Amino acid sequence: MKEKASSFFKTAQDQISSAVEATDGKACFEEDLWTREETSSSGTTMGGGGGRTRVLSGGSIFERAGVNFSEVSGGLAAEMCQKLVGIGEQLPFYATGVSLVFHPLSPMVPTVHANFRYLEVGEKKWFGGGTDLTPYVLFEEDVVHFHQHLKTICDKHELASYQDFKKACDQYFYLPHRGEHRGIGGVFFDYLGRDDDSQPELVFEFVKEMALGFNDCYLPIVEKRKGLDYGKKERDFQLLRRGRYVEFNLIHDRGTQFGLKTGGRTESILMSLPPLVSWEYNHQLEAGSAESRLLEVLSNPIDWI
Amino acid sequence: MKEKASSFFKTAQDQISSAVEATDGKACFEEDLWTREETSSSGTTMGGGGGRTRVLSGGSIFERAGVNFSEVSGGLAAEMCQKLVGIGEQLPFYATGVSLVFHPLSPMVPTVHANFRYLEVGEKKWFGGGTDLTPYVLFEEDVVHFHQHLKTICDKHELASYQDFKKACDQYFYLPHRGEHRGIGGVFFDYLGRDDDSQPELVFEFVKEMALGFNDCYLPIVEKRKGLDYGKKERDFQLLRRGRYVEFNLIHDRGTQFGLKTGGRTESILMSLPPLVSWEYNHQLEAGSAESRLLEVLSNPIDWI
Repeated sequence: MKEKASSFFKTAQDQISSAVEATDGKACFEEDLWTREETSSSGTTMGGGGGRTRVLSGGSIFERAGVNFSEVSGGLAAEMCQKLVGIGEQLPFYATGVSLVFHPLSPMVPTVHANFRYLEVGEKKWFGGGTDLTPYVLFEEDVVHFHQHLKTICDKHELASYQDFKKACDQYFYLPHRGEHRGIGGVFFDYLGRDDDSQPELVFEFVKEMALGFNDCYLPIVEKRKGLDYGKKERDFQLLRRGRYVEFNLIHDRGTQFGLKTGGRTESILMSLPPLVSWEYNHQLEAGSAESRLLEVLSNPIDWI
Repeated sequence: MKEKASSFFKTAQDQISSAVEATDGKACFEEDLWTREETSSSGTTMGGGGGRTRVLSGGSIFERAGVNFSEVSGGLAAEMCQKLVGIGEQLPFYATGVSLVFHPLSPMVPTVHANFRYLEVGEKKWFGGGTDLTPYVLFEEDVVHFHQHLKTICDKHELASYQDFKKACDQYFYLPHRGEHRGIGGVFFDYLGRDDDSQPELVFEFVKEMALGFNDCYLPIVEKRKGLDYGKKERDFQLLRRGRYVEFNLIHDRGTQFGLKTGGRTESILMSLPPLVSWEYNHQLEAGSAESRLLEVLSNPIDWI
């Protein structure tokens, strides 16, 4: 499964980056290949791997878009093993996956994140992943399109439950100190196949369809909103909301923490952070404004389908 | 001690905010009073307190300056008690203090942070605090002034060790995933008086002198550098370095975590984040540049005195 999964995630990275370049039409991805070496205190190599990071900056549509592929292995600290498989000792691990975050320049176009991964820790093996959308202006039909697309895929796979994965997404992308969700959700699943009899091949089929379906899930929304006019007010609000994105990723995101703790490549992990961000003390929303309406939805997730 | 400490921290807040307003000359602090109520699952009030947050925005010198006073009490979660006093059960706590972060507009003027606090958890009582400087352009004489000022105060108090507190500051304000310290250090001390026979009054005298000395430690540097010219290059670098500030505060800072976990007022805690921040993928420094020289110092702390 390691070889099949990592080979697939590379293909998915290719497919997504090509489509994003075509959509942007101006900037191209730059690729960095990186390797990781894990050595014990005595200097013995204990693990390694590496990745293929692709970042597009200063595009006509995307202020920054990053798509990472990585495949790493080695020894995982006891604390992380306890969290992941409930065994409090160092275990061998393997992880491969593709992850992406796109930050459009225009506040009319939503930010998107997706991640699909395969993990082995000790004897346990599983897939995880998901995708979620973070708009700065709420276009309900876009949100419905996004969720409907995900539901359609889930409905085709017995092991997948759109309802459960949608709920897990709302729970995961939540900022308790703000009382807000990061965006309008999507799906999130983890430990798929770890503790039950799901056939790994069937789980893999689901993950493949999700990853290969990403373009059709997100890019039509970009096409629809990229030409819309906006002003300083919308841009300023986008920069403020990007601050929440940073807060989530640095305080809560498990992928970010896993990456930084297992000696992943910092620049590849933190390419998820937006290019320009602002924080304003005690920012207040105008009652009845478009921003207020968005916040209402971020505070109280809606069943879109 | 609770009353004496909280009363003093309010005075320190007044003294510092007056001096900063006078230095800025344009913008004034806006004050928000806030209260905190802690209720059990059954709705009983278990604790409370509040604070006095003062934030100055859009000044001639300070893009944002925040000075918080707070005084909170209640029940502290077992996990935090374990960390703070080594007892893994919920205990009553009390915390009061003043904390500040100033983000100047000009990259020629360094960012500064200071925090002075008094805590009680269960039977244990202690003071903590410190101050550290984050320049974007390295003026060695400013750094020496900052450290010399702190050393002079430490040298007057038997319980204080500049060498130890300077080292603790370098260790604390460190970003392992970057291999960089946040700035050029300062002093950091914690648990002062918690486990030894230090007389609380003597510890308090030291903390008072540190807090009241803050203006003379930092503001002369502002006066010296505020008039210097700078361009887009310096401003861009400042925004990038502010990204590191955000990474430290959200990933590592104990005060931020303590505040968010104990239900502190989010806007008061996160006023430490800079008003405008950027992240650039894989930013590279020019060899031999002023930025490279600064990074060298941030990567390998220097004994300035």
